[in-house]
Amino acid sequence: MDIAKLLTENTEFIDVYLAKNLETPEKELETLYSSMRYSALSGGKRIRPFLVAEFCRLFGGKAEAAVDFACAIEYVHASSLVHDDMPCMDNDELRRVKPTNHVVYGEDIALLCGDALITRGYEMAARNKNVSTEAALAATAMLLREAGAVGMMGGQEIDLLSEGKNPDFATLMKMHEKKTGALIKASCLLGTFAAGITDENDERYKAAVKYAYGIGLAFQIVDDILDVEGDAAVLGKATHADAALGKTTFLSFMSVAEARAYAEKLTAEATNAIAPYAGNETLTELANFLLTRKK
Amino acid sequence: MDIAKLLTENTEFIDVYLAKNLETPEKELETLYSSMRYSALSGGKRIRPFLVAEFCRLFGGKAEAAVDFACAIEYVHASSLVHDDMPCMDNDELRRVKPTNHVVYGEDIALLCGDALITRGYEMAARNKNVSTEAALAATAMLLREAGAVGMMGGQEIDLLSEGKNPDFATLMKMHEKKTGALIKASCLLGTFAAGITDENDERYKAAVKYAYGIGLAFQIVDDILDVEGDAAVLGKATHADAALGKTTFLSFMSVAEARAYAEKLTAEATNAIAPYAGNETLTELANFLLTRKK
Repeated sequence: MDIAKLLTENTEFIDVYLAKNLETPEKELETLYSSMRYSALSGGKRIRPFLVAEFCRLFGGKAEAAVDFACAIEYVHASSLVHDDMPCMDNDELRRVKPTNHVVYGEDIALLCGDALITRGYEMAARNKNVSTEAALAATAMLLREAGAVGMMGGQEIDLLSEGKNPDFATLMKMHEKKTGALIKASCLLGTFAAGITDENDERYKAAVKYAYGIGLAFQIVDDILDVEGDAAVLGKATHADAALGKTTFLSFMSVAEARAYAEKLTAEATNAIAPYAGNETLTELANFLLTRKK
Repeated sequence: MDIAKLLTENTEFIDVYLAKNLETPEKELETLYSSMRYSALSGGKRIRPFLVAEFCRLFGGKAEAAVDFACAIEYVHASSLVHDDMPCMDNDELRRVKPTNHVVYGEDIALLCGDALITRGYEMAARNKNVSTEAALAATAMLLREAGAVGMMGGQEIDLLSEGKNPDFATLMKMHEKKTGALIKASCLLGTFAAGITDENDERYKAAVKYAYGIGLAFQIVDDILDVEGDAAVLGKATHADAALGKTTFLSFMSVAEARAYAEKLTAEATNAIAPYAGNETLTELANFLLTRKK
């Protein structure tokens, strides 16, 4: 299986919908919509939409049921990047070799853009006509919880408050579980909901949550390892950035070998969770692809 | 009828729920939740929650069906104020005689706070257990549309881009219809949905939309008049601020007398729309109260 090729095909497929659902509806709103398209269509591997599509397929859902949910999660993710890049947050002027949103549109429009993108994301979930009313409502409520103050945004708060404070291991884990883990979980669950499974006691629901937990945390650990051992040319960014910023990472608590073993264990737990389900090969391959990535 | 007293009672009632639904769930999130409570509970007349409750009552809904929707709209409104006050937007340091959110918590937390408050608002709508699944989903989708890029946020974009540009009358109208009108409309419709009416062809649905349009626009016209003719001591803020900022208002296109007549006409259209429904007295009184207010 060529997972990189599948990811590329998925990106080409979903980017059409990501653009279509952000067409300017009134000429007075062109600047706002242009800024939304700029950040929603600025590249990236589209891992989250891929997870939505694959979990829907794994659990027997129709492909069209996943499309709106896939757009939803990507808009929410893109919104978080727009706000994260702003001067009062990370103050980044470049993302994926392009100027960040506020550099192009100004801080005021960038702030609105993030608000409007996340709202459009939630709306895509609520207006998914290819699932039942129950599934659309459950998916929307779940997405709102995972993105909000107890999820992604809470993780960002913990990250901000931890700066220069040497957080302990439990705090680091909680921060990552929320900051990046919550949207990974939401992605896998949106696919599960698209297949009509909304009961959290269902074994398939639990499997999606377990898989998300494993790959989400492993992804972060690999990030930390690449920052120390990666090739800057391959990564496309400078290494040893965490140390330069005095950031607490998994490597503040364990050796590279231990961290790698931990990421392998988490990946195995993730793939074991979905092993009982026929057609799990793509998601299994994805987990291993994320574990062994060089960038 | 003492509408001011009813508004005060409504505020006391809803503030309990506004606080309860923002209790800190994990100690690591205390700063974020504290900032959310700070702005959601910082006073105000709670007109929007009142509209939710009153339209629910007018159309025969149960009081408890309106509570979560009332919190939803107030959180969305509060979020917009937090982001509007930030340095890259209006750069306001005071709101209702208190330091604004970013002055107290810093810009980074204020940015997150606005994101988390609006997300919590949407979530309150999606998790309203006192209405049917259909009504909760319809209400959430409607709220997301009215708050988002084609609604409130679009109005903010038009406002930002109009600065110093002398927008024409049609642009001014569109800006107000979206910037403040969209959430007034959402408030009236949330009450209508709470009463189980979700069909936009229903006469009651149309009446709610008409009422919202009339009071929303009249409210803005009265604002513009008070800025010219109001008493700064009663208003609690300096008058002639619009002229000092070179802002285009209704008075850029008509005299004070014409503007007052226009606001009266809009208010009459609003109250006429709900006249057929028994129990409309409170909403009729509210429309007249907003028309004749001195602050």
